[in-house]
Amino acid sequence: MTGWTWEYDGYEPADERLRESLCTLGNGYFATRGALPECAADEVHYPGTYAAGCYDRLTTDVAGRRVENEDLVNLPNWLPLRFRPADGQWLTPDTARVAEHGQALHLDSGLLERRTRYTLGADRVLSVRQQRLVHMAEPHLAALRTEFTAEGFTGDLDVEAALDGGVTNAGVPRYRDLDGRHLTRMHTGTVEPGTVWLRCRTRTSDIRIGMAARLTADAPVTTWREASRAGQRVRLRLPPGRTVTVDKTVALHTSRDPAISDPLDAAIDRVGAAPAFDELLDSHLTAWDQLWRRAELDVPGEAGRILRLHLFHVLQTLSPHTADLDVGVPARGLHGEAYRGHVFWDELFVLPYLDLHFPEVSRALLRYRHRRLDQARATARAVGRRGALYPWQSGSDGREESQEVHLNPRSGRWLPDHSRLQRHVGSAVAYNVWQYCEASGDTEFLHTRGAEMLLQIARFWADSATWDEGLGRHRIRGVMGPDEYHDAYPDAPHPGLDDNAYTNVTAAWVLARALDVLRTLPEPRRRELAERTGLDDGELEQWEDVSRTLHVPFHDGVISQFEGYGDLAELDWEGHRRQYGDIRRLDRILEAEGDTVNRYKASKQADVLMLGYLFSPAELQDLFGRLGHRLDDELWLRTVDHYLHRTSHGSTLSGLVHGWVLARARRAEAWTYCQEALRGDIADLQGGTTGEGVHLGAMAGTLDLVQRGLTGLETRDGALWLDPVPLPELSSYGFSLRYQGHWGVRLRLEPGRLEVTVPPSDRSPIDIRLPDRAVRVEPGETCRLVLPG
Amino acid sequence: MTGWTWEYDGYEPADERLRESLCTLGNGYFATRGALPECAADEVHYPGTYAAGCYDRLTTDVAGRRVENEDLVNLPNWLPLRFRPADGQWLTPDTARVAEHGQALHLDSGLLERRTRYTLGADRVLSVRQQRLVHMAEPHLAALRTEFTAEGFTGDLDVEAALDGGVTNAGVPRYRDLDGRHLTRMHTGTVEPGTVWLRCRTRTSDIRIGMAARLTADAPVTTWREASRAGQRVRLRLPPGRTVTVDKTVALHTSRDPAISDPLDAAIDRVGAAPAFDELLDSHLTAWDQLWRRAELDVPGEAGRILRLHLFHVLQTLSPHTADLDVGVPARGLHGEAYRGHVFWDELFVLPYLDLHFPEVSRALLRYRHRRLDQARATARAVGRRGALYPWQSGSDGREESQEVHLNPRSGRWLPDHSRLQRHVGSAVAYNVWQYCEASGDTEFLHTRGAEMLLQIARFWADSATWDEGLGRHRIRGVMGPDEYHDAYPDAPHPGLDDNAYTNVTAAWVLARALDVLRTLPEPRRRELAERTGLDDGELEQWEDVSRTLHVPFHDGVISQFEGYGDLAELDWEGHRRQYGDIRRLDRILEAEGDTVNRYKASKQADVLMLGYLFSPAELQDLFGRLGHRLDDELWLRTVDHYLHRTSHGSTLSGLVHGWVLARARRAEAWTYCQEALRGDIADLQGGTTGEGVHLGAMAGTLDLVQRGLTGLETRDGALWLDPVPLPELSSYGFSLRYQGHWGVRLRLEPGRLEVTVPPSDRSPIDIRLPDRAVRVEPGETCRLVLPG
Repeated sequence: MTGWTWEYDGYEPADERLRESLCTLGNGYFATRGALPECAADEVHYPGTYAAGCYDRLTTDVAGRRVENEDLVNLPNWLPLRFRPADGQWLTPDTARVAEHGQALHLDSGLLERRTRYTLGADRVLSVRQQRLVHMAEPHLAALRTEFTAEGFTGDLDVEAALDGGVTNAGVPRYRDLDGRHLTRMHTGTVEPGTVWLRCRTRTSDIRIGMAARLTADAPVTTWREASRAGQRVRLRLPPGRTVTVDKTVALHTSRDPAISDPLDAAIDRVGAAPAFDELLDSHLTAWDQLWRRAELDVPGEAGRILRLHLFHVLQTLSPHTADLDVGVPARGLHGEAYRGHVFWDELFVLPYLDLHFPEVSRALLRYRHRRLDQARATARAVGRRGALYPWQSGSDGREESQEVHLNPRSGRWLPDHSRLQRHVGSAVAYNVWQYCEASGDTEFLHTRGAEMLLQIARFWADSATWDEGLGRHRIRGVMGPDEYHDAYPDAPHPGLDDNAYTNVTAAWVLARALDVLRTLPEPRRRELAERTGLDDGELEQWEDVSRTLHVPFHDGVISQFEGYGDLAELDWEGHRRQYGDIRRLDRILEAEGDTVNRYKASKQADVLMLGYLFSPAELQDLFGRLGHRLDDELWLRTVDHYLHRTSHGSTLSGLVHGWVLARARRAEAWTYCQEALRGDIADLQGGTTGEGVHLGAMAGTLDLVQRGLTGLETRDGALWLDPVPLPELSSYGFSLRYQGHWGVRLRLEPGRLEVTVPPSDRSPIDIRLPDRAVRVEPGETCRLVLPG
Repeated sequence: MTGWTWEYDGYEPADERLRESLCTLGNGYFATRGALPECAADEVHYPGTYAAGCYDRLTTDVAGRRVENEDLVNLPNWLPLRFRPADGQWLTPDTARVAEHGQALHLDSGLLERRTRYTLGADRVLSVRQQRLVHMAEPHLAALRTEFTAEGFTGDLDVEAALDGGVTNAGVPRYRDLDGRHLTRMHTGTVEPGTVWLRCRTRTSDIRIGMAARLTADAPVTTWREASRAGQRVRLRLPPGRTVTVDKTVALHTSRDPAISDPLDAAIDRVGAAPAFDELLDSHLTAWDQLWRRAELDVPGEAGRILRLHLFHVLQTLSPHTADLDVGVPARGLHGEAYRGHVFWDELFVLPYLDLHFPEVSRALLRYRHRRLDQARATARAVGRRGALYPWQSGSDGREESQEVHLNPRSGRWLPDHSRLQRHVGSAVAYNVWQYCEASGDTEFLHTRGAEMLLQIARFWADSATWDEGLGRHRIRGVMGPDEYHDAYPDAPHPGLDDNAYTNVTAAWVLARALDVLRTLPEPRRRELAERTGLDDGELEQWEDVSRTLHVPFHDGVISQFEGYGDLAELDWEGHRRQYGDIRRLDRILEAEGDTVNRYKASKQADVLMLGYLFSPAELQDLFGRLGHRLDDELWLRTVDHYLHRTSHGSTLSGLVHGWVLARARRAEAWTYCQEALRGDIADLQGGTTGEGVHLGAMAGTLDLVQRGLTGLETRDGALWLDPVPLPELSSYGFSLRYQGHWGVRLRLEPGRLEVTVPPSDRSPIDIRLPDRAVRVEPGETCRLVLPG
């Protein structure tokens, strides 16, 4: 691994799934992973081209159950390209000796490069180099250049390219019992000279897909077609030592694209108008170069290299091309089929980063949620509440898509799945609305769609709160927090927990922000909102009341994860670690033992501590103060310690949140957790899950860790607040950001020093607030600040 | 006609087409016109439900020509509802005596009401009242309430409702030779209790349409279905004197909708979840009420009534619901099939109005153009130019859709149609980008998509300009101006004119604004743009040069419409008026005489004078000054006079532009032209064209006439400029506007007085500039200004 290249050498099929996953290429519109065609048969099990937001629903009977699944659809494979010595066998590692093989993902250029040397006989070597790109300036295009060099011989080589519609969703082994045949009504055809096409539809959502491929070579190209595949053939004359090139250019359109008439026509036109590979590469490089500048991140060492990989992967799923699409933030990006491409709450870890580099992308992702506000209101009504309840999992139309049962592979038992009781997604959406508006200064959005979402989410929380006379507090009962180990009280007849601290505190925050917005709205707009929603002063008073009286449980001098958490048993962590080694899925272990994790003070991931991730210490103290509690440093540190020792880190987000929180608490262990967060996908720490798709939230979260976490950066009240807590291992670094119409503002952190540079423009100066002072930086100025020792 | 109601009484089938057109109901997402089902057979020729942006292309062989037409598709008809005394004949004016009939379009509530009294026999009257709405808060819903009252009898009434897929595009008689069968693969079905559905696809663009209808009555509802129709039947018991009600609720979805999975499922779900009529009406009224407030317009007298009608029609095509759709501004709105729903340059007359009330709608319409920027660049390349050439007519995908031949019905000859040489659409797009950004303060848009469009349009103009050594000027040759009479020089072998003044002056303006934007862009963004477009200092110098040296021709002390215009013959206007009466289509008259209008100083509509519509006198003087010409009041007045007497006003836009320009020139004739603009559609001044769809540009233009024209309102350099030129006939009026985040800013004009009220908010104060002074109005303040006598 070098600075800008992610490289694997040798040929190790065992790691292939992980490698393929990290070697996905995308541009926000679509992403492609998968083996290059000259690789061995067992590799090509994992192709995959996913287009943002293209979902389809299938029903399967599995073990007597009718299981409905909405999947992000695996589109036809555009990659196939194989070759053989004239009239010989197609070359693969199974049929020919591979003398050398290497694969490199060039992050700076968005290029995947593979080099393979096949030994064809004594002194006869065929060297093959392939460069693959999914175009970052022209989102509907992808291209594959293949260079052949005959070493030590002259000969003819047959090359065959294809578009292959015979794909299914089969990327996650444990889903393979489910029907994955999403593509139907396949047609193929040719457009001379040398272009073939394939069109099909998804089975139930009826999204039409059009793909066209052009093959360019220095020899006559013929086309061929079958029912679900079409392609080209060319016979190349290989002179010794001279490189011969074949370029494949592919266009993809779906019927969800705006500004087209027919997706197949559009694909054929586009591939016909596409320039040659070199020119395509040139504009692709420029686009990637610009992305890297917008998200400049100058972090030294291995951390910097990993962060670049993370950024690369975030930008494949969420790039400026996403800004015109109706798509959300799928948990695994466009990188694999795990979680079926569903949207959870991962945007909470992604948007705060994007806000400060690609605000138009954040805005589009918030509009995605706004378009589903009506559905969220219907979901709230279905559980007997007013306002909006955003679902735990969703796909195409904003409906709840969470499974209702899941299998414990350890016990073989199907268990009820209550994860839809995680009702805190709305708080994540509200948090992102607020952060986006503060970072971008987009008052228009705040006053229109933003206010509509905040208001309905606040209303849901207020309506979910019930007054407990005994406690003298409002309570939110029967929910789940972010920690997925706990879904019920031990032996309780019904699922759900009361007064999850994360839920209640974020609910109070949402209510307070909704009240803030309503106070500052221009009067005519406030009237509109009130009329449309029936909001009146009585309800606002109720919000104010609930926002100050929601119950936050405590035990043993720490914040309780939920009411009654203090009564749970202590787990024998050491004993279980000894017995099972990896106890990340403690829930499954205990269930298989006939026990339940619900009995124990044991968390899968950060829950209470998420509060320290979302809010700065000052803001969290204010929030607790509003709720009538004094949250001092000691209480918080005790709370951090309590949960740190009782968490199994069974989620990729856990290391991130703990690293962030510990860094702010200036604790020595911080770096260990940060490293775990950094290594989550590159080392596949969650045991084989990276191969099924990267963990986008955790990846983006690490970027935000250096951007907001370690700098204490907040965009609040029209100012940029900073309160650095550099780690000894990460104390000198810089990055740029976009802030309220300023482009390329640069921050540089050095031990004891902070530097802010604002590029020249006609914008207003930027107000910077540190804990001990306030400064104003004019456009064109650099401000150097000495930090308190 | 009363203040808020557009009413027709009696029963006059001859006027039905006009009436139906003005009685269209829509909400931005879709619009429906057409007879109510109890009317006579000849009325139901003109149903029509058009969904924004749903185009389809068909090919027909007409008279040996292969004619391709892309149409805005007429969707299935959701209106049918008929009734009859039990087992009698269906009641229509053909089968029963109509004692009374009246139809009223309630503008304030977006309701179409019809009342009919059928005489069924001696002393037996069936009174029927229908209320129709296309829902303004829930854009996918429409509803029809029918109230039956038996007067003087008791009896059973059979009612039958339907969704009817058997529609074609047949609303414009002269297109009926073309294939209008856009709907295919029709399916129908029922969902008990009482709901039916219909789904189909457009023939080539393959847009899927799902429609579902629910019927609610106080009696058992049965359903029925046929191949392309489905509906309900109910037998009502009518007690004497008591009103019995049947409510029909309809949901429409197409596959172009975001946030749905399948359009039919979505329609069925939506109609199932829709509340009862009264509740639907309530939220519909609230939504309309809010629209009227956002576009408050307090103009007295008949002008005020007509302006309200115009506003009503604008809001049916372009409402906040449009802000999330990929749709443009079709010349005839969603009101009829003329021009096939194509998009021309009418947005130039629409967006400046919307900017100050619904900036989110303007932004969406500009994004529609931005999505087609690549296509506009391809169109430019196709004519050998760099930059972006927006087409004269377009539909789904931004391609040029202008016809290449047209028929002169007078001569029966097919003539070449060169209207695609109107290359000035790009200037309209650029003007709207600029106006939108100035009005909204949306710097983000200006710096991103706005700059991209401005730059490419400017580049097209610069690359279209050729240096004429003899003139010492740059020239743009071979184009058409807005005036469609002139498409070539007399006897020239090629079409096109040189140096159309409107084209050259707006091109200079675009170049100057593009240079302005590039100067003020944040440096990192400017670098991005330069890299992506290859823009360098040399090109910018060329733009600067072209923007100062474009040729503006003059003759006889006036601006020439184009170079050589002064050499054309004078037309015998009186003679032709005597001979033909209506000479609005002078081009057809002369061609039929074997002559050509190209020979004469005769314009169909404003061309040079459009400059006075787009630019304030001060700005126009600056612009001419930049081009090296002194444009004093006298020169301008001479120019106005010259063209005023040589224009046939064969476009609805002509009266508007002349009224505007004459008002600013403080000329007595202004009111006459303003009135013509106001009466264009209500009196169908263009001879039967209103029945084929309203003239949206002219309608919006009249709103802008009172908003910007007579007040001299400009949003420029961060201030609101005012320079009122009240007409004696229109000197006291008020309106509200949204400006840079302020909502509900109110302007009131009285003779000698101007009042500006800024509602309370936390926004910055508004800077107001009058010719003789500058004032600053704080939020919460009213500023009263005495105008110079």
